[in-house]
Amino acid sequence: MPGINDPHAQLKKFITDRMAISSDHLAMLCAKFRVKSTQRNEILLQAGDVCPYIYFLNSGCLRVFLMDTKGKEYTRFVVTENRFGTAFPSFTLQEPSLASIQSLEPSEVLYITYYDYQSLNDAIPGWDRFNRIGLEIDYIASIKRIESLITMDAKQRYKQLMETQPTLIQRLPSKIIADYLGISQETLSRLKSKK
Amino acid sequence: MPGINDPHAQLKKFITDRMAISSDHLAMLCAKFRVKSTQRNEILLQAGDVCPYIYFLNSGCLRVFLMDTKGKEYTRFVVTENRFGTAFPSFTLQEPSLASIQSLEPSEVLYITYYDYQSLNDAIPGWDRFNRIGLEIDYIASIKRIESLITMDAKQRYKQLMETQPTLIQRLPSKIIADYLGISQETLSRLKSKK
Repeated sequence: MPGINDPHAQLKKFITDRMAISSDHLAMLCAKFRVKSTQRNEILLQAGDVCPYIYFLNSGCLRVFLMDTKGKEYTRFVVTENRFGTAFPSFTLQEPSLASIQSLEPSEVLYITYYDYQSLNDAIPGWDRFNRIGLEIDYIASIKRIESLITMDAKQRYKQLMETQPTLIQRLPSKIIADYLGISQETLSRLKSKK
Repeated sequence: MPGINDPHAQLKKFITDRMAISSDHLAMLCAKFRVKSTQRNEILLQAGDVCPYIYFLNSGCLRVFLMDTKGKEYTRFVVTENRFGTAFPSFTLQEPSLASIQSLEPSEVLYITYYDYQSLNDAIPGWDRFNRIGLEIDYIASIKRIESLITMDAKQRYKQLMETQPTLIQRLPSKIIADYLGISQETLSRLKSKK
């Protein structure tokens, strides 16, 4: 029931800030997103499984990460509130995921299945455009990530993260930040203390 | 004039293979793409400039690359025939580009301005969807590139390239391949000789 505790309120704002949509279509769309509360460190997707959902975060933080054969973890993306996130290749191609998804903090997430999400393209005028523009933003972010991985050293990557997402550095464990930057925890400590 | 030498023939096939489009809309679209022949090593975009065009390659090969303050180059993407390519963040946001674009081989390219490309979204039904699906593919490729940069060593990256784009290795100078893989030319020679 909508109201001050409407779990779909942030999603509605996110969408109506970005596209014109009728209230009927918005209600239909929201009905396809279910709500879930997650615990710290809960695994939402295990590598090897097909990712069934795309998430919208009301609160909290998810990370998408890879693990090599020796058990070393690599954080591919971090998703925070008022953002969509998923293991994109697996969700989009509906094939087994290389990455896992973990809730780093107790979080409230909305989630929708692949088939329901796809059905919105035909059901809601402008949904393709909404997605096209969202993908442009995500694709640009991933290109910038590639640029930082191929051209920057540890110090430059840390500086970039400080400039673009300073709250992440305060909020997340050092291990996750080091891992996201592709540097050791020792190097991260040294960079933090120099600041 | 359309015919066996129609420079827009490959673009038309690329589009009609992927979406339903009327012949009027297809003709209108093609009229916005101009043709250009490039020379080996010609620079199509200089870093610092706003990227005015997105390209469709009829033949040849472009690379999108970065250069650091010491003049070292880093290849971000390689685009071959029957693909679209541009310095995506600069083109999409119409802001100065960090990357340059270079024609690695004598190439025939079609090119369209940002404003003409944007106008297709409103003019052509289904163009948003065509772009949304193309972006999904490009975004997945960039995620896989991030994965390979953060989790793989030189040998694994070379093996992956051999499996996914073997012709690139034969076709491009060793310097560019080494640079794309983020490894030294010496390491690449060693990997090549091992087979």
